[in-house]
Amino acid sequence: VSNPTAPRIIGEQTLRRIITPAIAFDVIREAFRADGQGRTRVPPVINLDVPAHHGEFHIKTAYIEGVPHIAVKIASGFYDNATRGLPSGSGLIAVFDAETGLPSALLLDNGFLTDVRTGAAGAVAADVLARRNIAVVGVVGSGIQARHQVRCLRVVREFRRVVAWSPTRERLRRYCDELRAEGYEVRPAESVEEICAIADVVITTTPSRQALVRAEWLRPGMHVTAVGSDSPGKQELEAACLERADIIGVDRHSQCAAFGELSHAMTAGIERLTRVAELGNIVAQKAAGRTMDQQITIADLTGVGFQDTAIASAAVRASNQSN
Amino acid sequence: VSNPTAPRIIGEQTLRRIITPAIAFDVIREAFRADGQGRTRVPPVINLDVPAHHGEFHIKTAYIEGVPHIAVKIASGFYDNATRGLPSGSGLIAVFDAETGLPSALLLDNGFLTDVRTGAAGAVAADVLARRNIAVVGVVGSGIQARHQVRCLRVVREFRRVVAWSPTRERLRRYCDELRAEGYEVRPAESVEEICAIADVVITTTPSRQALVRAEWLRPGMHVTAVGSDSPGKQELEAACLERADIIGVDRHSQCAAFGELSHAMTAGIERLTRVAELGNIVAQKAAGRTMDQQITIADLTGVGFQDTAIASAAVRASNQSN
Repeated sequence: VSNPTAPRIIGEQTLRRIITPAIAFDVIREAFRADGQGRTRVPPVINLDVPAHHGEFHIKTAYIEGVPHIAVKIASGFYDNATRGLPSGSGLIAVFDAETGLPSALLLDNGFLTDVRTGAAGAVAADVLARRNIAVVGVVGSGIQARHQVRCLRVVREFRRVVAWSPTRERLRRYCDELRAEGYEVRPAESVEEICAIADVVITTTPSRQALVRAEWLRPGMHVTAVGSDSPGKQELEAACLERADIIGVDRHSQCAAFGELSHAMTAGIERLTRVAELGNIVAQKAAGRTMDQQITIADLTGVGFQDTAIASAAVRASNQSN
Repeated sequence: VSNPTAPRIIGEQTLRRIITPAIAFDVIREAFRADGQGRTRVPPVINLDVPAHHGEFHIKTAYIEGVPHIAVKIASGFYDNATRGLPSGSGLIAVFDAETGLPSALLLDNGFLTDVRTGAAGAVAADVLARRNIAVVGVVGSGIQARHQVRCLRVVREFRRVVAWSPTRERLRRYCDELRAEGYEVRPAESVEEICAIADVVITTTPSRQALVRAEWLRPGMHVTAVGSDSPGKQELEAACLERADIIGVDRHSQCAAFGELSHAMTAGIERLTRVAELGNIVAQKAAGRTMDQQITIADLTGVGFQDTAIASAAVRASNQSN
C-alpha cells in the first residue's frame, strides 16, 4: 500500500457477522450512559436537500470520551431510485482515530449499523422504561426496524408472543413468517388499536406522517417506543399520547423537540409534559426510569450521532480482533 | 466484488497526476459562477472539537446543479500529532452520485484537493480583481499554500518575479529554492512591509492570529488575497486594510463575516465597507470586479463546500477517463 494512512474497508457481510444484537445493546447502552455523564460532544447534523433528484443527505458525527474512534456517518435517501431498481437508502461511515484524527476504516454497511444501533436504542429505552415482565410485544410496521427492534428487545426482556400490524398485507405476512422461523409466536393484527389492546410493549417503526397510535388506546403499564420520527413532518403517536405518559424518554431533547414525537406535542401546546427525560440521564441514573408497574411510558427515538460513533468503533475493534 | 455499490478508492498520487493547476482553475471558476447564478446549496459546516487530544474535525458538503457528484469532505487537525511523527492534518473526501445518492468514490487525498482548490480560488479571485499586467508577486508564508497560490496564479497572469517572506528562515530558503527550480526569479524579503512596497499581487498564506499586513502599506493598484483565516481567531490583514480597499471579494459572505478577514473589520466597527461582493457574483457578472488600474482590491477566502464538490467531481471524472 503506497498510502500509509489508507483506511481499512469493512463490508456489510463482515459487519453483520460481528455485530450481534447483544453486542449492539451493550455498546449503545454505554453510549447513552456516557451521554448522561456529559462525556459526549454532538455537533448539529448536516442536512442537504437535492430537490432536483428527490434526494437528501444527512451527516452525523459525535465524540465520546473514552471511545477510541470518531465516526462520520453519511446517509442518503433518494426516492426516485426504486424506478431504476436501486435502493433508496445508501451511505457509508468513515471512522477516524480519536487521538490522531487519521482515517481508521470505511464501513460500507449499506445502512446495517444504523438499523442495528436503532434497534439497540429501542432495547436501551425498554430496559429502563418497560415493565420487567412482559407477555406480548406489539409491532407497528413490517420493515427492517420491525425486525431489529424485536431481536434487540430480546436481549433485555423475555417474551415469545408478538402481534404485528402493517398497512401492507403481503409484507405483514412475510414479516410474521420470518419471526415465526426465529421461534416467536406471531399473530397479525387487524389494526393498531387491536395491538394496543393486548401488547405490553408497543414499537412503532413506520415512516408515517400522521399519528397511528391514539392516546385513548394507551393502558396503564404499557410502554411505547416510537422510532419513525427521524425528520420533520413524520409522526406516529397522537400528541395527546405524550400528555398521558408518566415518563417520556427522549434520545436527545434538542432533536426530539425539533422533529420527534415531542415536537408534535409541543406544537399542540400540550403543557403537561411532566417527566420528559433524556435516556442518557436515565441510564446514568440521574433521572428516574419506570418505578411502578401501572405507569405509562413512551420512548421518542430520533437517532443521535453518538450512537453511530459507538457502534462504528465497536465494529472496527471487533473486526480487528476477528482478523 | 460482493458489494455492488462499493465505491472506488482513488489515492493521492493519482489525484496529483490528474488535477493540474489549469484544470483546478477551470473547475473552481465554474463552481463560483454556479454559486453566483444561484445554482449551489451549501449547508452549514460541522465543526467538532476534540479538546482531550488537541484536535478538531470540519465537515463540508454542497450540491451544485449540473455537477454529477456531491462530495462530503472530512478534514481533521490534531495538533499533538507532530510529537508522534504524524501529520497534523488528515481526512478524506467521500463522493456520491448526485442523482442516486450512491457512493461513487473515496478520495484519499491527504489534503491535496483542498490545497489545490484553495490555490485555484486564489487564481479565480486574482483573475477578476488583480490588474491584467503584473510584474511582481509577493507571498507571505512558506508552506503548501504559498506554493499552490503561485502555481495557480500563473494560469491567469504572466509573471516571473516572486518575493517571499516567512518567519521561519530555513523554510523560506527552501521555498525560494523550490520556486527557482520551477523557473521563477525569487527573492526572500526581510519583512511583509518590503513585500508590500514592491509586489502588485500579495498573497497571505499563514495561520497567523494577528495582522501581518498594515493598511498604510497598501498602494493603489495592488491586489491582496488572504487565504489564512479559515476559522475563528485567525487574521492576516489589519482591519483597516478592508476600509482602504475599493473592492473586497469574499468567497462566501456568511463565512467571511463569521471568521474571515471581513469579520475583524466588522468587529472593529469599520463602517465604510463599500463594495463587499461575493466572488461568485463577480464571476457571474452580477457584481463588478476591478474596473480601474489604481483600485485597491482584497480577496477574503475561507474555503466553501462547493469548491470541494467541484474539485472532487472533476477528480472522479478525470480518473474514470484515465482508467
